[in-house]
Amino acid sequence: MASDKPAHRFDPNFTKNVIEGMGPATTPRNREVLGALIRHIHDFAREVELTVDEWMEGVKFVNALGEIYYTSNKTRNETHRICDVLGLESLVDEIAHKIISEGELDPTSSSILGPFWSPNAPFRELGGEIFQDGVPPNGRVTKMHGVIRDIITGQPIPGAVFDIWQASANGKYDFQDPENQTPNNLRGKFRANEKGEYWFYCLHPTAYSLPRDGPSWQLLSLMDRHPMRPAHIHIMVTHPDYQGCTTQLYPNDDPWVKSDTVFAVKDDLVVDFKPIKEKDPKAVLELEYNVNLAPKGYKGKI
Amino acid sequence: MASDKPAHRFDPNFTKNVIEGMGPATTPRNREVLGALIRHIHDFAREVELTVDEWMEGVKFVNALGEIYYTSNKTRNETHRICDVLGLESLVDEIAHKIISEGELDPTSSSILGPFWSPNAPFRELGGEIFQDGVPPNGRVTKMHGVIRDIITGQPIPGAVFDIWQASANGKYDFQDPENQTPNNLRGKFRANEKGEYWFYCLHPTAYSLPRDGPSWQLLSLMDRHPMRPAHIHIMVTHPDYQGCTTQLYPNDDPWVKSDTVFAVKDDLVVDFKPIKEKDPKAVLELEYNVNLAPKGYKGKI
Repeated sequence: MASDKPAHRFDPNFTKNVIEGMGPATTPRNREVLGALIRHIHDFAREVELTVDEWMEGVKFVNALGEIYYTSNKTRNETHRICDVLGLESLVDEIAHKIISEGELDPTSSSILGPFWSPNAPFRELGGEIFQDGVPPNGRVTKMHGVIRDIITGQPIPGAVFDIWQASANGKYDFQDPENQTPNNLRGKFRANEKGEYWFYCLHPTAYSLPRDGPSWQLLSLMDRHPMRPAHIHIMVTHPDYQGCTTQLYPNDDPWVKSDTVFAVKDDLVVDFKPIKEKDPKAVLELEYNVNLAPKGYKGKI
Repeated sequence: MASDKPAHRFDPNFTKNVIEGMGPATTPRNREVLGALIRHIHDFAREVELTVDEWMEGVKFVNALGEIYYTSNKTRNETHRICDVLGLESLVDEIAHKIISEGELDPTSSSILGPFWSPNAPFRELGGEIFQDGVPPNGRVTKMHGVIRDIITGQPIPGAVFDIWQASANGKYDFQDPENQTPNNLRGKFRANEKGEYWFYCLHPTAYSLPRDGPSWQLLSLMDRHPMRPAHIHIMVTHPDYQGCTTQLYPNDDPWVKSDTVFAVKDDLVVDFKPIKEKDPKAVLELEYNVNLAPKGYKGKI
């Protein structure tokens, strides 16, 4: 292995010189982040003895990422997806939420945002449906409901916003599927009532593959990995006085739940979609999911 | 400092799981390179406790790199330039040439290719001029000459190709400066004669700034660094039986030679442009530069 070779085989001052090239007006945080980035990039290159051709392949790969973003009118963010495939978004999410989860309390686990969230999802009435284009033939309508509470007091949080987005039964989100879905299909925001309750109708989610073309598929192929995400529902719960929670929920019977290609599954996010108890002409399944939010400033979250 | 915090603060199995996600059909080299890349990216993120916003800034930055490459018709490779600014191209060059330079012999030092080499430079006659658009007002014509030899036998290498490219006196290469320069101005290839000799007329080079717009300038600004490259001439010397040499030569009186913004200067590449000895109506300066090439296969160069 290249990594067994002594580090002093290469100029021992090179990396230091590059890092110390930063001038006095560099902010302390930029110095810390960029200094560590330079050190790790150099250590990586020395450790594997990166060849000129391999580095050039990397340059081409990065250019291809930005090209696809630009030529897709910024709807296809392969750079974001590459970070997911390498586990970076999940790791950054873990880091961001470590400070809360190191406390004694137990707020709802977070998970990655992913590239399909939209800032334009409409508000809908409590009890409404997010499938605005009708139920697809193999869709299983689920009544999702729960209570949003303050993690410290246990009191409900009236007015908290529950934002949900999900792929359709064909595994595609609205903006990947303009022939079958109108914009904002399977997206919606709901405002919790005075008891902190929310409820609406969505679909049992469907597992899907990341796109099998483009740079992320190229990378997955190099690593001999499957491109499957387990079925999931995305949620983002926010309130002006609380730290928001972005997460994903996974049906416990999904075959990909143990090998998510973006490493986003956490044990407590695996949930049970049950046959609905109270007869409801609209739904065959139900999912109860309660969310606990930490007040802003709790444990000094960054 | 974040790096003083214990590593076990975060899930100790996460990185291992991502790396072990690679399937059995991954090639050994891809496993080595991508495994090390994932490990260093994760270690970097944990060490600086990278925030979601910082990571997102990075995603936007990468997308901007590819966008500028695409929208410039692939003439402006900011991804390549970012690698130079971070010292990566120089480091990869050092790694590639370490095996030769660890031998007892002393071949000509290499340096980075940079983003301005062209595969289309024309062959010119020995003794010709590379400034095909005339000598710019502040240009100092230099007669460059030397011998290309086999590093082991000391014998000349007839037919070796000496490819030179340089910026004009305004600090711009032909494809950055279409209003003042025709394509292939200040570029040319020369074939050494039967004694391994080459000679031609070029300009004393001029220091220049990297572009002061776009992502590489943004990064330099964050690091409070100047964007200057010392004056230099690029050369690439090749022959089918020898390992090629790509390098750059720097005038020893240049003010930026100690702080090159792409870290490409090596001591033995700093040269003396002297007033020309034998009277020559065409030139005011001369530069003698001899090149030593290693035969293919020497020291098992990768």
